[in-house]
Amino acid sequence: MNILFTFVPLESVQEGIRQEYPDFTIHFSRIGSAADYLPEAEIIVTYGEDLNEDYIQKAEKLKWIMIMSAGMEKMPFDACAKREILVTNARGIHKIPMAEFTIGTMLQHVKQFPAIRRNEELEEWDRKVKVGELAGKHILILGIGAIGGETARLAKAFRMKVTGINRSGKPHQDADQTDTFENIEAYLPDADFIVSVLPSTDETKHLLKEEHFRMMKDTAVFINIGRGDLVQEEILLKVMGEQVIAHAYLDVFQTEPLPKGHPFWTMDNVTVTPHISSITENYMPRSLEIFRHNLQVYRTNEGSYINVIDLARGY
Amino acid sequence: MNILFTFVPLESVQEGIRQEYPDFTIHFSRIGSAADYLPEAEIIVTYGEDLNEDYIQKAEKLKWIMIMSAGMEKMPFDACAKREILVTNARGIHKIPMAEFTIGTMLQHVKQFPAIRRNEELEEWDRKVKVGELAGKHILILGIGAIGGETARLAKAFRMKVTGINRSGKPHQDADQTDTFENIEAYLPDADFIVSVLPSTDETKHLLKEEHFRMMKDTAVFINIGRGDLVQEEILLKVMGEQVIAHAYLDVFQTEPLPKGHPFWTMDNVTVTPHISSITENYMPRSLEIFRHNLQVYRTNEGSYINVIDLARGY
Repeated sequence: MNILFTFVPLESVQEGIRQEYPDFTIHFSRIGSAADYLPEAEIIVTYGEDLNEDYIQKAEKLKWIMIMSAGMEKMPFDACAKREILVTNARGIHKIPMAEFTIGTMLQHVKQFPAIRRNEELEEWDRKVKVGELAGKHILILGIGAIGGETARLAKAFRMKVTGINRSGKPHQDADQTDTFENIEAYLPDADFIVSVLPSTDETKHLLKEEHFRMMKDTAVFINIGRGDLVQEEILLKVMGEQVIAHAYLDVFQTEPLPKGHPFWTMDNVTVTPHISSITENYMPRSLEIFRHNLQVYRTNEGSYINVIDLARGY
Repeated sequence: MNILFTFVPLESVQEGIRQEYPDFTIHFSRIGSAADYLPEAEIIVTYGEDLNEDYIQKAEKLKWIMIMSAGMEKMPFDACAKREILVTNARGIHKIPMAEFTIGTMLQHVKQFPAIRRNEELEEWDRKVKVGELAGKHILILGIGAIGGETARLAKAFRMKVTGINRSGKPHQDADQTDTFENIEAYLPDADFIVSVLPSTDETKHLLKEEHFRMMKDTAVFINIGRGDLVQEEILLKVMGEQVIAHAYLDVFQTEPLPKGHPFWTMDNVTVTPHISSITENYMPRSLEIFRHNLQVYRTNEGSYINVIDLARGY
């Protein structure tokens, strides 16, 4: 059986995989140089950003694609559906790093770590910096699924008030209340932190409008670790320029990488991070764990796959 | 009845207290200018750093001292004991801000926020920064009481392994294991974060020695939000200079304020904060809540006081 990894992990990781599956023919190669391996590949393991219809056609024996991430905007689902190729992904592995990133960002904000660090550079012992707390604050989570739910669980541990927004408005165990996006205006005026973990879909594109920002407190903080097209860039530039809210922590952008010279880089009330909320030392071990499980199901036809993608819905 | 506050809060807070207790004579005055009020004061409300035996003698009618903090190193306990003056403090109000500060510091470290911020200043989209997680890491808490316990609770929510050290070794509900300081060497080699919230007492002074740091991992992080004399300054300078561990986050020092020019300010692997872990916007409301409760007990002789200090033990 042939497995093609379209990325090249550390030598030690490659070796580990080869030793674990001695009866498989395993290739590690970026897709651009994988022409020799594609026709024989029965399984492709990918980050999901490199495949297209053409590659799918060339992979004549392909039966299963394992995507080692959760973002699938670039996947050629139609071509997969035609051939009835099984697609699974690594959904769920992002929840721990992304929830930690969100709480870390909120703590940075209330504890004013950047201001304190500037004082440190000046060797200034200044105890007058206004330090706040997460306890008692209200977090509004747009997209309370796996990642949003983990964030909610931690926020509750910090004694915060948690409101979750999801497609159905179905209650979530770690949210004080849950509702649909249509009713978001009821929560915006009270929220201290508005956190989006929403993916990019037809429904979420440009979902957050200027009027929504104008309903927020002037002390409110917007954190976007979902996708950059949730808000039109011009709107975000406008409301942050007018200081409609206190701060925006942006990990995702309309255009990535965010180009040098873009105004977001230098705005005092905007913090730019390079789409890193999900990056962690544990990424590879966790996604490999899902791969291993699914490979076992594939080989033995026993048990059930983790994270099978519905190709018609695209998630 | 006369109450003397030896600190001067915001006008609005003073007004609120006066309105709440219209039948009391209330003065707000720093101790140095309170000579006129001391002889009549039945209750003194203080931060605990300004009283001495002389003032206690002058306050002939004094029956109760309410300390609006937890640190009591400067309190003239002997003079209070002689006169059988009731002393209560605000122990417990620090646990939320200090635990949040500790988790925030650990997240700053694993998420590398300072490095990412430097890249932001350079308008550098760099996704190669090595980002870690708290999940799975081991935190060793020296002093698992109110503050250490709240830190342990949050650390467990972050899926960390928690070891607590306290005087008795008595188990704590939010620690995976608890032990006494005598056995600390068993935990040092495995700990990722060593956090001290210990007060300064004869037992804790210079408790952590050079050999202890040498037992830690080279990736270990030391966080001290307790008291600066837990480690001799020369030892800390030596082990951090030799990079025996990865980083020290110091909020407390042998000499405070830490003087300009002190090497800690500029060491790359030492972060200095100006004894602010307990400072928060909620400090005054929370300590006043304890004062209010105790004043009610004092007036009515019903119920029991919160945080009565044993003057012989000093805590």
